[in-house]
Amino acid sequence: MNPFSEKTSETIASLGEQKLLARIRRWLGAAAPASPAGMGDDCAVLPAGKNPARSRGKTGAPAALVTVDPVIFGEHFDAAVPPRAVGRKLLRRNLSDIAAMGGRPRAAVLALALDPRTRLDWLEAFYRGLAADARRFGVPLVGGDLATHRGGLVATLTLLGETTAPGARALTRSGALVSDFIAVTGRLGGSLPSGRHHSFTPRLAEGRWLARRPEVAALMDLSDGLAKDIHSLTPSGAKPLLFGELLPRHAGVDLRGALADGEDYELLVALRGTPDSLRKLLAAWRRAFPRVPLTVVGQFAPSAADPAEHGALDLSAYHGFEHFH
Amino acid sequence: MNPFSEKTSETIASLGEQKLLARIRRWLGAAAPASPAGMGDDCAVLPAGKNPARSRGKTGAPAALVTVDPVIFGEHFDAAVPPRAVGRKLLRRNLSDIAAMGGRPRAAVLALALDPRTRLDWLEAFYRGLAADARRFGVPLVGGDLATHRGGLVATLTLLGETTAPGARALTRSGALVSDFIAVTGRLGGSLPSGRHHSFTPRLAEGRWLARRPEVAALMDLSDGLAKDIHSLTPSGAKPLLFGELLPRHAGVDLRGALADGEDYELLVALRGTPDSLRKLLAAWRRAFPRVPLTVVGQFAPSAADPAEHGALDLSAYHGFEHFH
Repeated sequence: MNPFSEKTSETIASLGEQKLLARIRRWLGAAAPASPAGMGDDCAVLPAGKNPARSRGKTGAPAALVTVDPVIFGEHFDAAVPPRAVGRKLLRRNLSDIAAMGGRPRAAVLALALDPRTRLDWLEAFYRGLAADARRFGVPLVGGDLATHRGGLVATLTLLGETTAPGARALTRSGALVSDFIAVTGRLGGSLPSGRHHSFTPRLAEGRWLARRPEVAALMDLSDGLAKDIHSLTPSGAKPLLFGELLPRHAGVDLRGALADGEDYELLVALRGTPDSLRKLLAAWRRAFPRVPLTVVGQFAPSAADPAEHGALDLSAYHGFEHFH
Repeated sequence: MNPFSEKTSETIASLGEQKLLARIRRWLGAAAPASPAGMGDDCAVLPAGKNPARSRGKTGAPAALVTVDPVIFGEHFDAAVPPRAVGRKLLRRNLSDIAAMGGRPRAAVLALALDPRTRLDWLEAFYRGLAADARRFGVPLVGGDLATHRGGLVATLTLLGETTAPGARALTRSGALVSDFIAVTGRLGGSLPSGRHHSFTPRLAEGRWLARRPEVAALMDLSDGLAKDIHSLTPSGAKPLLFGELLPRHAGVDLRGALADGEDYELLVALRGTPDSLRKLLAAWRRAFPRVPLTVVGQFAPSAADPAEHGALDLSAYHGFEHFH
């Protein structure tokens, strides 16, 4: 069977990303366990030992984290992006997923699918950028694969990590409840024109700090834009109320950019506690990370809530990045 | 910088696979530890705990294994291969790498780079083939990534496993010595025309069995053809002597096919012991695996040896699969 069709109705483009993901879950069935042990979160979480005789759970041993992300020529970078930056971006977007679980990275493997016409000097700069970052973030490249791919250039990095908080706590996307506050690290928007999409600093220390705080109910990283990604943190029966005037934006970025540009690689946090406990948490954050703001930008309301009534944003007017369109 | 050039002298095609790998090691430098903790073997081996306080080494805890392999449209499969078989092949070629270390698989993550024109029915059959094999081999699919890749279809699977032998022993490609015998499992050749390249059974039970035998000095799986792959098992200062009449071939396969067709996914073994201990090992193998032959096909000689003098094959006359040509 030819994998491709020119009739859109027969193709994945007819579904879009979310419906396609739902189909894939159905096709995989019992072969794909549910999140957080399986698909649907920033990383998969593998307990330290499935066999109780080997389990390190009682000794507080970490759980293993696994994430995979590619960079693809023509999609995630083009000829205008320096190859060193492509290598850095590949590692950093995976590191951001480890940060989003409150974990620390441990080792990486790289699969490269390369056109035989790939320039040696391009590839050298790509590897040197990757190697410099691997040393900087303490992530040894322990293996990989090279394969021929006529007409394409796809670099896929799988990153292994481990939980760092007591009890092997991994912060997942699920865990938020109605009335939890919504916060973001750093500032949003303008990632592509500014080059931040390949030079951002993954929020590893910040994620580990958040994983140790009982007020943090859920965590993820922002890759497709806040207006789209917030739905992954929203519990069923809830609606996110986001307030435009609270959004921390990069200089020169408008509201739409902060909500929908994507590739922010900041952390999106659900916070639960009394006003006093949250004030203390934010004060402790400022002492720990004086140069990275943590900003409350909204709250989860019951799903019957009308954002306009609360002066909150109508998120349906903003679209984050959608794959396969 | 454009990643591609039409001047071959500027491209990776001017180097070929082995020289390119040597360059990559140089570019990565300290970021890539040496095998078996790093690149150069069928899997990377991660010890159970780097921090001695957390180490499970004394309790005989397994080491983690990691391997990654893609299937790429136009390279590893075409429109003639049923999509279910593509999904199976993707998992099985990674399982073969776990088998080649004497390990057992634990979990997999899948990164799919897809043209928006990808047919839904093609993708469904691919996933169903993958899921059926994931259940059969007990490998949950715990995570993944979907990305747009206009004009291409690349599926990259990362497989995590663990060692099974006492002392977390992982069988690597290094460990053979001059005078060790060379053996292969199963039969060789004709993998592509027969369809075995996507329907083969990875030698997982056989690999675990071999990892517990002290006579086994080194192990790898055959993917690019015996004539090429044997060099990865050959220690420095040695030369492999292979005897054509000993090679176990599939029906209808000639000597060249057994040496150079590739994609056999059989195990290649270095054996060390007295004639009596090796006779006992082969007898025990036949009881354990009555339907899979383990055949001694040669021996490592000092590198000054002349194959012709011993009636052995001149391997330079046979070429296994070479990437980037």
